[in-house]
Amino acid sequence: MRNLHIAAAQLGPIARAEPRDEVVARMIALLERAAQRRADLVVYPELALTTFFPRWFMADQAEVDAFFETEMPNAATMPLFARARELGIAFSFGFAEKLLEGGRPRRFNTSILVDRSGRIAQRYRKIHLPGHPENEPWRAFQHLEKRYFEPGEEPFGTSDLLGGRFAMAICNDRRWPETYREVALRGAEVLLLGYNTPLHYPLAPEHDHLQAFHNHLCLQSGAYQNGLWVVGVAKAGREEGCDLLGQSCIVAPTGEIVAQASTVGDELVSADCDLDRCAEIRANIFNFALHRRPEMYTALRAG
Amino acid sequence: MRNLHIAAAQLGPIARAEPRDEVVARMIALLERAAQRRADLVVYPELALTTFFPRWFMADQAEVDAFFETEMPNAATMPLFARARELGIAFSFGFAEKLLEGGRPRRFNTSILVDRSGRIAQRYRKIHLPGHPENEPWRAFQHLEKRYFEPGEEPFGTSDLLGGRFAMAICNDRRWPETYREVALRGAEVLLLGYNTPLHYPLAPEHDHLQAFHNHLCLQSGAYQNGLWVVGVAKAGREEGCDLLGQSCIVAPTGEIVAQASTVGDELVSADCDLDRCAEIRANIFNFALHRRPEMYTALRAG
Repeated sequence: MRNLHIAAAQLGPIARAEPRDEVVARMIALLERAAQRRADLVVYPELALTTFFPRWFMADQAEVDAFFETEMPNAATMPLFARARELGIAFSFGFAEKLLEGGRPRRFNTSILVDRSGRIAQRYRKIHLPGHPENEPWRAFQHLEKRYFEPGEEPFGTSDLLGGRFAMAICNDRRWPETYREVALRGAEVLLLGYNTPLHYPLAPEHDHLQAFHNHLCLQSGAYQNGLWVVGVAKAGREEGCDLLGQSCIVAPTGEIVAQASTVGDELVSADCDLDRCAEIRANIFNFALHRRPEMYTALRAG
Repeated sequence: MRNLHIAAAQLGPIARAEPRDEVVARMIALLERAAQRRADLVVYPELALTTFFPRWFMADQAEVDAFFETEMPNAATMPLFARARELGIAFSFGFAEKLLEGGRPRRFNTSILVDRSGRIAQRYRKIHLPGHPENEPWRAFQHLEKRYFEPGEEPFGTSDLLGGRFAMAICNDRRWPETYREVALRGAEVLLLGYNTPLHYPLAPEHDHLQAFHNHLCLQSGAYQNGLWVVGVAKAGREEGCDLLGQSCIVAPTGEIVAQASTVGDELVSADCDLDRCAEIRANIFNFALHRRPEMYTALRAG
């Protein structure tokens, strides 16, 4: 048995004007609660430090850039890094990352995994950017991830810490079965997955009532079909007039939800996650070496 | 709107001694019920003509071969082909197929799709064979598909009929997300999927109570993540002492179950399936061309 106590630290809405240090104080409050449960790892959502700014079209790049971090840790997040290190808790969160490459600014939707010592063990840049690149005023709100971010250019990776193998994905990544399979083929045992998911989907509003169903359907099937623990963590609630899905949860490798948030505010849920349980699935029904047929997946391979 | 009325024709148990003509009579009875509903297509389960014989180890190949068909249609199934043609109904079912290739016998777990005129429009040979190749007497029953069948050697295909594009998969194929993605990338709008699923899984009996959950989890996520109609059809009930899952169902491209069997006997459920509804998903959230990132799926591609 390799048992970890993992916490999903859901965040309620973050106002556009809310400064990062206030958000970080909320994150630390959740961290303290996790410490009371002797958690080993705390997982926060996508773009955890600010409001979900891709909902607005901003012509002025400086206005957009105000939502980005140019270094990590930085002044605003240092208290979180410091307190987690004191408590010996690993953690993961998402943020908008801006970096300079040969003088050229590049921007990604990024998440990091930080080990018990405060070291960034892994960095992941979102591969499946949803939304659209141009302003579409007919929408109730925008989803301009394809405008404000470049897609990640590195395949899904893993990192080894806490006696297990971890991978990260972000929001829309979780809808794609390729995400789970890629990390499982690399031996990941736990997938950390933050999201901001509006209840309203302007392209097919007749499916709005299915958002919660689709969220869990993807998380649960991804866990089961790959024998993975999945930790899905929402930024939730009514944020600047936009309702975001909650439903943060921890899913066992059997696909069963073992912990779930029941509010759309700041909320901590946690569960014992025995990483050895991945083998119940991956050594049997989903034994990839015995049963998978990659040579038959010609459309996937042609991709 | 391209509306088809599709029926899932679940079969209850088939005894080892039950002759094929009696099974075919049961299939025709379900066909007649489907005709009363003006069904366009009737889908029967995997290995529909006989008991699920891979549950027994048989040392004598002639005993095994008695469960195989060497031509299709044949004398036993001709009445089904004839009646369906009279009624103008397309249909699909699975059977054990034996053929001679250069004098060498080859055996597959096969399904066919027959158009309204009685012509075999498509043949599919099961790609993901579950189970094991050797007798394992410690099991309550065997699952010797890897002994009695060769794995299919052709990738998933599609066929165009009834104004839509169809694909087939068989039983264990439905657990693998690659199955749905392969056929969706080829433009399939409806996936026909027969199964024989014991409630007891000897390798992980602690998951036996999850069989029904896992069945629908895979069918529903596969439908949603690919914007496909999925028709899952069971051979169900207590067959020669082995309990088989029922739960035959039709799943919309939204992942919602729109028709479901509630017995483990011969039972017909059906639904209107508007093939144009695939676009609700595949032109939006799962628009492959816009959002999929095949160049990032390096583990999948390496296979």
